[in-house]
Amino acid sequence: MLRLFGRWAMLFWLMAAALLLPSTAAVADDGYDLWLRYRRLPQAALDQVRPTVAAIHWSDSDDVRVQTAAAELNRATAQILGDTPSSTATVPRSVVLGTPGGSPAIARLRLDLRGLGDEGYLIRSTTVDGQPVTVVAGNTGAGVLYGTFALIQQIQLGRPITGITIRSAPKLKLRVLNHWDNLDGVVERGYAGQSLWDWWTLPAFKDPRYTDYARANASLGINGTVLNNVNAKAESLTAPYIAKAAALADVFRPYGIRVYLSARFTAPMELGGLKTADPLDPQVAAWWRAKADEIWRAIPDFGGFLVKANSEGQPGPRDYKRTHADGANMLAAAVRPHGGIVMWRAFVYAETDPEDRAKQAYTEFKPLDGRFADNVIVQVKNGPIDFQPREPFHPLFGAMPRTALMPELQITKEYLGFNTHLVYLGPLFAEALRADTGRGRSVGQVVAGERLSGLAGVANIGQSRTWTGSIFDQANWYAFGRLAWDPAADPDAIARDWVGETFGTDPRLVGPVTAMMAGSREAAVDYMAPLGLAHLMGTGHHYGPAPWISDLARPEWNPVYYHRANRAGIGFDRTRTGSNAVAQYAPDIARRLANPATTPEPLLLWFHHLPWDYRMQSGRTLWAEMVAHYDRGVAYVADLRRQWAALAPLVDPDRHAQTAALLQIQEADARWWRDASIAYWSSINGLPLPPGAVPPEHDLAWYKARQVPFAPGNPK
Amino acid sequence: MLRLFGRWAMLFWLMAAALLLPSTAAVADDGYDLWLRYRRLPQAALDQVRPTVAAIHWSDSDDVRVQTAAAELNRATAQILGDTPSSTATVPRSVVLGTPGGSPAIARLRLDLRGLGDEGYLIRSTTVDGQPVTVVAGNTGAGVLYGTFALIQQIQLGRPITGITIRSAPKLKLRVLNHWDNLDGVVERGYAGQSLWDWWTLPAFKDPRYTDYARANASLGINGTVLNNVNAKAESLTAPYIAKAAALADVFRPYGIRVYLSARFTAPMELGGLKTADPLDPQVAAWWRAKADEIWRAIPDFGGFLVKANSEGQPGPRDYKRTHADGANMLAAAVRPHGGIVMWRAFVYAETDPEDRAKQAYTEFKPLDGRFADNVIVQVKNGPIDFQPREPFHPLFGAMPRTALMPELQITKEYLGFNTHLVYLGPLFAEALRADTGRGRSVGQVVAGERLSGLAGVANIGQSRTWTGSIFDQANWYAFGRLAWDPAADPDAIARDWVGETFGTDPRLVGPVTAMMAGSREAAVDYMAPLGLAHLMGTGHHYGPAPWISDLARPEWNPVYYHRANRAGIGFDRTRTGSNAVAQYAPDIARRLANPATTPEPLLLWFHHLPWDYRMQSGRTLWAEMVAHYDRGVAYVADLRRQWAALAPLVDPDRHAQTAALLQIQEADARWWRDASIAYWSSINGLPLPPGAVPPEHDLAWYKARQVPFAPGNPK
Repeated sequence: MLRLFGRWAMLFWLMAAALLLPSTAAVADDGYDLWLRYRRLPQAALDQVRPTVAAIHWSDSDDVRVQTAAAELNRATAQILGDTPSSTATVPRSVVLGTPGGSPAIARLRLDLRGLGDEGYLIRSTTVDGQPVTVVAGNTGAGVLYGTFALIQQIQLGRPITGITIRSAPKLKLRVLNHWDNLDGVVERGYAGQSLWDWWTLPAFKDPRYTDYARANASLGINGTVLNNVNAKAESLTAPYIAKAAALADVFRPYGIRVYLSARFTAPMELGGLKTADPLDPQVAAWWRAKADEIWRAIPDFGGFLVKANSEGQPGPRDYKRTHADGANMLAAAVRPHGGIVMWRAFVYAETDPEDRAKQAYTEFKPLDGRFADNVIVQVKNGPIDFQPREPFHPLFGAMPRTALMPELQITKEYLGFNTHLVYLGPLFAEALRADTGRGRSVGQVVAGERLSGLAGVANIGQSRTWTGSIFDQANWYAFGRLAWDPAADPDAIARDWVGETFGTDPRLVGPVTAMMAGSREAAVDYMAPLGLAHLMGTGHHYGPAPWISDLARPEWNPVYYHRANRAGIGFDRTRTGSNAVAQYAPDIARRLANPATTPEPLLLWFHHLPWDYRMQSGRTLWAEMVAHYDRGVAYVADLRRQWAALAPLVDPDRHAQTAALLQIQEADARWWRDASIAYWSSINGLPLPPGAVPPEHDLAWYKARQVPFAPGNPK
Repeated sequence: MLRLFGRWAMLFWLMAAALLLPSTAAVADDGYDLWLRYRRLPQAALDQVRPTVAAIHWSDSDDVRVQTAAAELNRATAQILGDTPSSTATVPRSVVLGTPGGSPAIARLRLDLRGLGDEGYLIRSTTVDGQPVTVVAGNTGAGVLYGTFALIQQIQLGRPITGITIRSAPKLKLRVLNHWDNLDGVVERGYAGQSLWDWWTLPAFKDPRYTDYARANASLGINGTVLNNVNAKAESLTAPYIAKAAALADVFRPYGIRVYLSARFTAPMELGGLKTADPLDPQVAAWWRAKADEIWRAIPDFGGFLVKANSEGQPGPRDYKRTHADGANMLAAAVRPHGGIVMWRAFVYAETDPEDRAKQAYTEFKPLDGRFADNVIVQVKNGPIDFQPREPFHPLFGAMPRTALMPELQITKEYLGFNTHLVYLGPLFAEALRADTGRGRSVGQVVAGERLSGLAGVANIGQSRTWTGSIFDQANWYAFGRLAWDPAADPDAIARDWVGETFGTDPRLVGPVTAMMAGSREAAVDYMAPLGLAHLMGTGHHYGPAPWISDLARPEWNPVYYHRANRAGIGFDRTRTGSNAVAQYAPDIARRLANPATTPEPLLLWFHHLPWDYRMQSGRTLWAEMVAHYDRGVAYVADLRRQWAALAPLVDPDRHAQTAALLQIQEADARWWRDASIAYWSSINGLPLPPGAVPPEHDLAWYKARQVPFAPGNPK
């Protein structure tokens, strides 16, 4: 058969080719735009929006962040309207941006901006000279910038912007990403390619991507970024690297983002040639003061240091028989003249301490309450172990009333399937922040109460075109930012916003995708580590199941340390008959956790060692309940695949195909987790599978032999 | 001052914002399109082109590569015409694509396709039924595909496509990229981010970028790709990794590209549990046969293996007292039933051999001439050392008449400033291929004469948005492909095409940029290693100058081994009074190289140790000439910066800014090379600087102390 195509046919072929051949970036929807995806709205919505954004008014006596806000609003509305601007030059002003101090137009409106602080905003529909306008106001340019992004979001989601009043201010002051980015470009626990920071070409070349990174963060209210890994190299504090960090700070400043650096505690020895890094040694303190002066000369709004000390091989004050407070306060004194702060991590577990690892941070830090300088904030992981699929809240929250604490969340999914698994972390983050400390306040409320407050998230960002290695992992960055602004925010509502901004507002898509996300973290818990189990993954990579591992040098590196399964039962007894970790919680909480019957079932095996035939609330035995959870997790992922396949007509082909491929991997992995785990537990408890349960596809030896070579995120 | 902007003003602001704020990928010209950048032509050119591409005719009984060709032509013309296709359905056919065997329309034309082989093409303007048409024909789909890309290039460059006849066939059969990509994503000597291959998500996810990679290669005629590093891991030959390679092969097949793998010689031990990898052991041979069968089942058009054996720590047949021919022939027997080949590297230098390193490959391989199976091709680096800024051609070229040889070029600039320096390698490649072997034929002619022939290029490609870490490094990929097709092609003409396709055809831009590129490699030689010097760079990173290094374990790792500078003179005596490496060349060449007066000055110190006051053709002393070269190199780069700055109005802002930043680095680096080198040579020869020469900015100690931490491309 011969074919002859005219130019109409060519159009057809071009469209066909666009399906068959992946198109170039110029046309492909490759995920780069993140949630700042400004596409033309449906006509009815457009007609409504157009007059409300016809003219943007701001004052150039406002600061650079207001100028940034105006540019962002222009860019967004032009892309969303998607048409040639109207030709009249006489349209009335329709949006007014600014601060009372910088804009006479705002000042004249005499808006009530009390309670908005340095970063809050007010969006209000009002009239000026009888004309309807939308005002975006704040006490500073930062507030105006955040308010403008909130206004853009309204427009983007097709929500009316007439007759509105939105007041919002962040509950936490430091909303910070921690990049575990090494200076050689490798990102520890990074699943999205090389580090975003091209240290090699900085400071000469400022990749446009740095600006897009800042835009994305500013749109969420993220106001700080720690550029380098907490496992820090001293080199990041040398003059060439300070100049590189300064170049990034220059890019981020118009977006209200400060730069921080992770500091290696022994830098005075490695760079300064000192014989000690003892925090009480005057020469050491002087070295850090001089170093702080040097950094602030290059970066006038530098934020300060993040320190991982005496943890997993990093040096710290304990090497000199000093306390963590001694170390933190010495650094705090160095940065104080510049208004800087020190974020000091509480993630410690001693190499020689035989105590339950879950107890060690509390044991070490609780006695230091009240001894940290007021420009120190202690960064505490959400749970007492290490970013597991589910942990109870960290007992330090509520236990250090005289110390500023900031929770550390992990956005990158080290223990939750990397970028490969669709696991929306909003519910995990919210669970951590909403946890009742037993002291009348939630974790989120406890940490917000301090003069210094914040939330840290270990970034999942790299040079991957999608930024995060998958489309759905973008939602985890997004949810972190939204919860840092308001720890009480609803993760499902956050997901709904993200879906609308990322995929469009078609309700046939928004509802199902939001629902897919909502249960995805619980599904991962189910197929990986149900009922309070934790730390069951393979050594090094942390990706696949290996509950059988028992031969690593340190006891608390081995999965068997955590699950303690034997013929009689399973679980870690953290009551008085065990490690008594429950005693680290407030009395009410401790009392409930001390009893299996009053311990929430999702945390049951975290706190209790129970017989395999322990009777669960469902009436099932513990063993049958475990198997049911594994099955439920696998079924959820299978369902994710079906639902996503059905959404194909509503999603652009590139983003649909990538997600479909990753879901295919996830389903196979969920089965792997379930089957390997069941095969192992069966080998320990000798019990038959509950009736109706599907036996593992392979025998235990097969799962033990399975290798995970060259897993990403695990630097040598 | 207050501002009020109407929608026209908003348009202005949007444009301003586009300049101030880097725009998203949807609008930014970020280099991703490479030379396949199809932009609307000027109106006059459009009017000329439009009727000639109005209707594309092909037959679906042709193979998938013809379908690919038609889709590519559709895509290109639609983007270049940049308008809505005409609405007539009755336009005459204007382009006819196909093979005589697959397309009756082509068969009826009775074109003379003799001499075009399997991959050549004929583009000819002719008439069909009285209507003018452009025919693109080949004996196979591959020829049609390459011809179609050639036609697209004509259109893209605004060249008329009426009244043309273009016949072209590749001079070399294997036109292959060697990826030094490790399975963990790190690219050895890679300066463009992580490996393009996301082994982690393969085979489930086929990144659209894989297709764009194939398109770019096919447009140059590159027909093979070795996916993994020659420093190979056995794991790449396991079933999971074969499946991943197969997924890539599926993507590449429609573009005429075969997949090859680097093979680790001891894989039968590591994967097969054998006690030996002795090539003469029957079990070893059987293991490789079974492995080849397994790979070809998954990849029916698999190409074969590339092997680095007994070189820099890699295992090989010499470990069993067998020859390279023994090893290669054993593998060749395994792949022969499938039509596969073995590319066997001649880059060897023995750990214990005190002989001049430049001589060792010849010494070891020359005696094996005629002993390699006919499906083995020996891959020989262009020069006898290792991809230095300038080397003489490798003496093996012309010395193994009974062995198929393929030159190995390095596209990635390990020794030429990484992605940071603008160094166009076309002249280096052409110099290597045009070198007179002294046996009546150039290197390019010698290697083309064999039944099996080819050219290998070590790829400079990674996940960087620009693919190669800079815009101008794209030209090196391009030049490699063009020279693999025709080793006699003119590098300046290639540069001119590349500039036109990459930046547009404005003559105010094409001329100057082509000229900038033309001299850039000589400039790098001048500021790094003039007059035949080589291997003067710092240990490990290979980026900056360190001619003083003398303390590395093996003599031939040290720069002092190569330059042999002392108070009396400088250079490596490779004549009879020295290592007599000249004797490895054909007699005429050897005779000329044996005498400084008849040795080309660019190679003078490669072959001769000469006194500092040796009189050069310029009349200057050697020392003064060296300094003049350093100065010339620095001046060239300074001039590059000036010229590029002046071109700002003609280049899109993103690509201009990136290149300007890199040129800034390059100029500083050129000064560093010059000043460090001159400081060191002065310390050796004790001579004053020639009159007028600028003294080094710092003293020698400063240059010696300078560190290059975290240089890319140097895996731990």
